Amino acid sequence: MTVIVQKYGGTSVGTPERMRAVAGRIVASKLAGARVVAVVSAMGDVTDDLLGMAAKIDPEPPEREMDMLLATGEQVSIALLAMAIHALGHEAISFTGPQVGIVTDHGHTKAKIMEVRADRVSEALDDGRIVIVAGFQGMTPDGQITTLGRGGSDTTAVAVAAGIGADVCEIYTDVDGVYTADPRVARDARKIDVISYEEMLELAAAGAGVLNLRSVEFARNHGVTIHCRSSFTDVPGTIVKEADSSMEQAIISGVAHDTSEAKVTIRDVPDRPGVAASVFTRMAEANVNVDMIIQNVSEAGMTDISFTTPKADLVRARRAADAAVAELGAREWTVDDSIAKVSLVGAGMKTHPGVAAQMFRALSDADVNIDLISTSTIRITCVVEGAQVEAAVRALHDSFGLSDAEVTVESVPACGGGE
Amino acid sequence: MTVIVQKYGGTSVGTPERMRAVAGRIVASKLAGARVVAVVSAMGDVTDDLLGMAAKIDPEPPEREMDMLLATGEQVSIALLAMAIHALGHEAISFTGPQVGIVTDHGHTKAKIMEVRADRVSEALDDGRIVIVAGFQGMTPDGQITTLGRGGSDTTAVAVAAGIGADVCEIYTDVDGVYTADPRVARDARKIDVISYEEMLELAAAGAGVLNLRSVEFARNHGVTIHCRSSFTDVPGTIVKEADSSMEQAIISGVAHDTSEAKVTIRDVPDRPGVAASVFTRMAEANVNVDMIIQNVSEAGMTDISFTTPKADLVRARRAADAAVAELGAREWTVDDSIAKVSLVGAGMKTHPGVAAQMFRALSDADVNIDLISTSTIRITCVVEGAQVEAAVRALHDSFGLSDAEVTVESVPACGGGE
Repeated sequence: MTVIVQKYGGTSVGTPERMRAVAGRIVASKLAGARVVAVVSAMGDVTDDLLGMAAKIDPEPPEREMDMLLATGEQVSIALLAMAIHALGHEAISFTGPQVGIVTDHGHTKAKIMEVRADRVSEALDDGRIVIVAGFQGMTPDGQITTLGRGGSDTTAVAVAAGIGADVCEIYTDVDGVYTADPRVARDARKIDVISYEEMLELAAAGAGVLNLRSVEFARNHGVTIHCRSSFTDVPGTIVKEADSSMEQAIISGVAHDTSEAKVTIRDVPDRPGVAASVFTRMAEANVNVDMIIQNVSEAGMTDISFTTPKADLVRARRAADAAVAELGAREWTVDDSIAKVSLVGAGMKTHPGVAAQMFRALSDADVNIDLISTSTIRITCVVEGAQVEAAVRALHDSFGLSDAEVTVESVPACGGGE
Repeated sequence: MTVIVQKYGGTSVGTPERMRAVAGRIVASKLAGARVVAVVSAMGDVTDDLLGMAAKIDPEPPEREMDMLLATGEQVSIALLAMAIHALGHEAISFTGPQVGIVTDHGHTKAKIMEVRADRVSEALDDGRIVIVAGFQGMTPDGQITTLGRGGSDTTAVAVAAGIGADVCEIYTDVDGVYTADPRVARDARKIDVISYEEMLELAAAGAGVLNLRSVEFARNHGVTIHCRSSFTDVPGTIVKEADSSMEQAIISGVAHDTSEAKVTIRDVPDRPGVAASVFTRMAEANVNVDMIIQNVSEAGMTDISFTTPKADLVRARRAADAAVAELGAREWTVDDSIAKVSLVGAGMKTHPGVAAQMFRALSDADVNIDLISTSTIRITCVVEGAQVEAAVRALHDSFGLSDAEVTVESVPACGGGE
């Protein structure tokens, strides 16, 4: 018998009507012969409302108590969804994260799943019930309630799928899959039918918001097949799984962009060993997430160090930068919060050396100036001016012919090769 | 070191401002040298809002899922109260009912506490923390979330007080204690300083809404002293404890009234053995709470059976009455939902036989007609017309001089004695 885990986000269960629609979809899967576990998030704006209440009471609330507070959002959802299924004449049983054996570390507000003891889920499925599980939450071994942070419900769904050996983990969202670029920016973006974990990870890390990075990592580590699809249609979405010979061999899978980061530059730092270590130790201590790091060539014994960081971390980053400038005897720090990242991702990049050159030329032809560059084996990321990011995405999408299934790469020498 | 459990109801924590005021009160108790555990209810209308959401989704929601839903209300309160205490610079830790070891039976929506494993509370107190506990909720031995029904938070507070051996359980409410009558009805009603468990139980059962019946029973069974007081003032309230020689020996403690019940009468029932059993088995099966029961003297082999029941149970009672009338070959059933109960409670009643007669005369002098009468050793209850209940309360309060500390009983023969 097919075992399916379905994950529904806050928008999908945002109103009683939508809750009923989700219940209908779950029941349909069961009637089609599957065993179904549904993982749900808090309804619509509930989490934001709870955060707002906390802010009114305590400007810096203890994280343990934030978790106690936020975990209620999903608990409301699971109870109501179980009721909606009951109203359709089917038996459902809801479980909180702690009840269902989502064991996490003590990292309150961003806990990591250590273990899934899914016996209660399996037993309820054996009893013929639909099982509803609260996403986003778990429990430490000593019984503290934790939440999993951003994208936590996706991670719960994948973890439960791994725990019960589900055939597929369906992540329902408000778009119908992963696209070759954000369709709001590149009108002719094409839905990707199948993609490997590695490429999906790079796309997610580069800003493709459809699937959460952690959940894809968890899926890769436990071999869980993800089906990312729309909760409003029955159209198949995007399958994320281990790369194998049956998959289409795209050289470039897609273009992702991200406007959520800012660039911090520490200027005129004395160029001596340990300088970078000092800066980024300060940032780590201040809990600042650092993404790209670039250190320029030294001039007259002085250098600049730049990095990008989520805008949400900027307040802490400024404080840490103050300290770093004072400690190192640097000149100053500056922030540019109007940057954007645009990334090209594709497993074929490893064996097609012309990709980087073609990317830079396409951006140049579109009059987009490149500020910083960073690469992995299957990704190239350029930092560009925020106002130019949409032009950059369209230029790359066109240049690599991503609207067609066939991807073209011009036969040019590899970037940096030759001379 | 004094150990205090304080219980705050939904009104006391209804807004962020009130939440802060409660936090201030808790911190003051700690600064005064006590170890403090606070038990809180859901904020203001939260429980009603949750019930409303459930009703929109499922007309007859499973009780297990109702508990899953409702338990979130108190969980929000404990997290926010812990934050409010943190904002005042003190350390607090919150626990849900399941976390704090409130073990209940499986009676979802009205579960009974079987055991309190209060180790986590004691440990947190040993660590110097203020402990916040979610009222109204518990967990079955196999890990299902339950709620305790009406007055559940009071019961949680008393149970936790028993579990940790607290010196006193302070129940904070919007009135400053237990009065000799409802002060809105009898303007000169007097606050009672000390009252025995037995009298408080009778007053609560007779409709005095200040303290919940179950919590007083639990307190009596475990010897927990209750201090019922206002969350808006520092005035001492009413102490509820075991009767002892230090207590004022009031003959009459107070007058209670209750307009929440209706009277159901089954008319012209054949008077044969088993008839009452049949009627009340039907009611029990339909989950109808029955309070007073009166069966009239039989006439021509036929009798009437009347009982009072909460108006909330009337829909179920009507259905069960239909079945009972059909089964017994009775003539009909009727409902009178404009009745009220007025009760006189006092431990001195046992030894002062004139009380009943004086009560009936006082009602008669006030032109209040008595419909039904029932008594216990320390209580006399009359059912009267709903429109007359306030006049009845005032007449009894005056007649027994309850506005003064000294209670007078006229020296008349006991009702029903002599002849």
